[in-house]
Amino acid sequence: MKNLVIIGGSDAGISAALRAREYDPSIKPIIIESGNFPNFSICGLPYYISHEVTNWKNLAHRTKEEIEDKGIRLLLGHRATMIDTASKKVTVTDHHGQMIFLDYDKLVIGTGAISIKPAILGFDNPGVFLLRWVPDSIALDDFIDKRKPKNALIIGAGYIGMEMAEALVKRGLKITVVEFTESVMPTFDPDLGMMIKDTLAQNNISVYNNIAVESINPLDDKLIVRGTNNFEIVADMVFTSVGVTPNTSLDVLSGLEKGIKGAYKVNKKMEIGIPDIYAAGDCAETWHSLLKKYVYMPLGSIAHKQGRIAGENAAGGNREFAGSLGTQSVKVFDKVIARTGLNEKEAKDGIFDPVSADFETWDHKVYFPTARKLHIKVTADKMSGKIIGAQILGAYGKEVSKRIDIFATAIFHEMTIRNFNDYDLSYTPPLSSPWDPVQMAVQKLEKNPLLKK
Amino acid sequence: MKNLVIIGGSDAGISAALRAREYDPSIKPIIIESGNFPNFSICGLPYYISHEVTNWKNLAHRTKEEIEDKGIRLLLGHRATMIDTASKKVTVTDHHGQMIFLDYDKLVIGTGAISIKPAILGFDNPGVFLLRWVPDSIALDDFIDKRKPKNALIIGAGYIGMEMAEALVKRGLKITVVEFTESVMPTFDPDLGMMIKDTLAQNNISVYNNIAVESINPLDDKLIVRGTNNFEIVADMVFTSVGVTPNTSLDVLSGLEKGIKGAYKVNKKMEIGIPDIYAAGDCAETWHSLLKKYVYMPLGSIAHKQGRIAGENAAGGNREFAGSLGTQSVKVFDKVIARTGLNEKEAKDGIFDPVSADFETWDHKVYFPTARKLHIKVTADKMSGKIIGAQILGAYGKEVSKRIDIFATAIFHEMTIRNFNDYDLSYTPPLSSPWDPVQMAVQKLEKNPLLKK
Repeated sequence: MKNLVIIGGSDAGISAALRAREYDPSIKPIIIESGNFPNFSICGLPYYISHEVTNWKNLAHRTKEEIEDKGIRLLLGHRATMIDTASKKVTVTDHHGQMIFLDYDKLVIGTGAISIKPAILGFDNPGVFLLRWVPDSIALDDFIDKRKPKNALIIGAGYIGMEMAEALVKRGLKITVVEFTESVMPTFDPDLGMMIKDTLAQNNISVYNNIAVESINPLDDKLIVRGTNNFEIVADMVFTSVGVTPNTSLDVLSGLEKGIKGAYKVNKKMEIGIPDIYAAGDCAETWHSLLKKYVYMPLGSIAHKQGRIAGENAAGGNREFAGSLGTQSVKVFDKVIARTGLNEKEAKDGIFDPVSADFETWDHKVYFPTARKLHIKVTADKMSGKIIGAQILGAYGKEVSKRIDIFATAIFHEMTIRNFNDYDLSYTPPLSSPWDPVQMAVQKLEKNPLLKK
Repeated sequence: MKNLVIIGGSDAGISAALRAREYDPSIKPIIIESGNFPNFSICGLPYYISHEVTNWKNLAHRTKEEIEDKGIRLLLGHRATMIDTASKKVTVTDHHGQMIFLDYDKLVIGTGAISIKPAILGFDNPGVFLLRWVPDSIALDDFIDKRKPKNALIIGAGYIGMEMAEALVKRGLKITVVEFTESVMPTFDPDLGMMIKDTLAQNNISVYNNIAVESINPLDDKLIVRGTNNFEIVADMVFTSVGVTPNTSLDVLSGLEKGIKGAYKVNKKMEIGIPDIYAAGDCAETWHSLLKKYVYMPLGSIAHKQGRIAGENAAGGNREFAGSLGTQSVKVFDKVIARTGLNEKEAKDGIFDPVSADFETWDHKVYFPTARKLHIKVTADKMSGKIIGAQILGAYGKEVSKRIDIFATAIFHEMTIRNFNDYDLSYTPPLSSPWDPVQMAVQKLEKNPLLKK
């Protein structure tokens, strides 16, 4: 029986523990978790703020008891502080402040990420919020309940910014968004971002682009926020979401090389280069299967995948992480925007010469009621004809997210534009067309003479 | 400029004409269509009966004018009666009964299918209906309007039977279904069929299984229907949907070998074995890419694909039909049932040794409102570990049909159970889970020790 120690009780750590148990039931993993909320759905926090989730406890993927019933030992309120790789010991401070030492045969690090605190003067003023953990959400929720803000400024128009904009509108606040780039949802091409900006406008949300926020100052009960381009706004509260940074503050004896944005360097087996130690999830780098290089991509879906692989390998398996495509979907009010692969800029910055088609049609035969428009952008590499990216915007409930997954699956298999029509996709008038919209979009791109084959 | 003649103005014929024009704009195809409703969505007819489609004219994929604007000549009310393959002429009877002769360089046959008239005594009585073409639907709709039937018996619980059951319930009729097999939706495994039977029961529809209807006799204004197992029911009207048969009555000089169910034998280029003649759609056989043999599979999505390939090849191209997986989805009241690949029986009858997992979960994180249960059955081949089929039942609007398409795409690429987890599928709490339900189902199957790898 191996001694498997896991640092971090969020997506990657729990996935590793569960998979290790499945792979070798003789293993009884120990998880060291500094907080008291193991296996919580970080992605669900905005829906707690919106009150669509009525009790924050429902946000747990699994309860403490469910995890322990699987034969996993949870040390909550325990903080790992040091790994001695020579003697294979982890130093842990328990909830009484007592130092304990855990021996490991195999170790998985899944310490996650922390929100970036932007370099804004006065960022620590009361009324300025980040959202990463359960206590952050409870604090934010309390503030709204007690202070009853009428409006909020959101700094950062990425996907958490968008989800929080919707959540706060649902709580009755008037929302303004300020964003550093020229559009919203900067992981999408600006033309699609502008369509989301229209959706925001329909929900009475103003967006200010190309602005770097520089200072936040109290003004009576309010906050005055200033930025470049003479930006100045007074708000009852400020929510900030400008990305995350890997949580790799753990002291590892014998040293450890860190990679992009300070994330742990890993190989495809999720090994970090020190015997018997794996890292997975938001604290680690991610292999991008299209760019053929490591990137930093802190997404819950990837944390689950990498954790599963680290767990299987720690338990004696031999699995490799196949890589990520940056697949992502976000609900913004009544719309969903989803992407996979590379957008045009990423493709150009990478190793590709991209060509795209924009295509708009109905999600299903328009003669059947409730058809809504889908906007599909599909990108291929001119030379190889391979599909390298897709972006879809459409209505919630109209199969936007699983349509992007058809592209994700196709890109995984290096499918070409020419052969994408060969897929035998499902059709019934209330749900699609004889050619699914994804195939119609590809047919449009196929006609582009810039495609070499 | 080639003389391209196309027989049949439905899905296959129109697709062939459109693709030929795209491929070589110098071609001006002529389509011979015996009816007056070119390019109508046959799959949409039940939604005309339900009155969800308010005008039958909306059922046209394209109007006559739109087709002609693409540079395609339509001869409506013209019936092709003979092909002289030696002199390359098609004999056509025009709408005045006049015989005309059309020369062709290339010929595409897309004559479709016709409803099977079951061998039931008294099937020709008034009040007994089939549904294949626009005039059938108008007749049925008129009957309901004028005779105001209170109830209907549906013979055949396939997908058109199910769609019609829903349509007639929406028109206020009490519906009974009688079916020859042990379940409903016989292209699905019986366990999933039974779940659809539950949905029918929730909508006050009784189903009688294992019965062969033998006779229909008038009884005053009603019909008395009798079958095996002492089945006897009195109904105001009867709707029959027991499948279709290829429409291959065209006289082809020099003879022509027909295949399964009398469909035209074709190769992957959709050639029929006589120079310069192609067949596509419901009149032709279909290559099944899993069974590695020809089958008869009259589906609109396949007709579009085969028509496109026939059209491209007739225009000088060189495309092959990649094969079908029998992908299909159907809305039944508030549910959707979808399949791709092989069900267990088909797999056993084929060249596989199947093993399946049944898995039930929520379509998205249950903490976000409106989550609904998905039932996923996934089937793999024990020896190779390859996925060979999937069936999903879930609520309408919960991405059932495009989830089946993820499987369809995976099966196309001969994906294994083991590597299916490598797909980077999209996740956001209102639409999925960190592992999409399709991956969770496959993870369950992965644990089955019967899988060899």
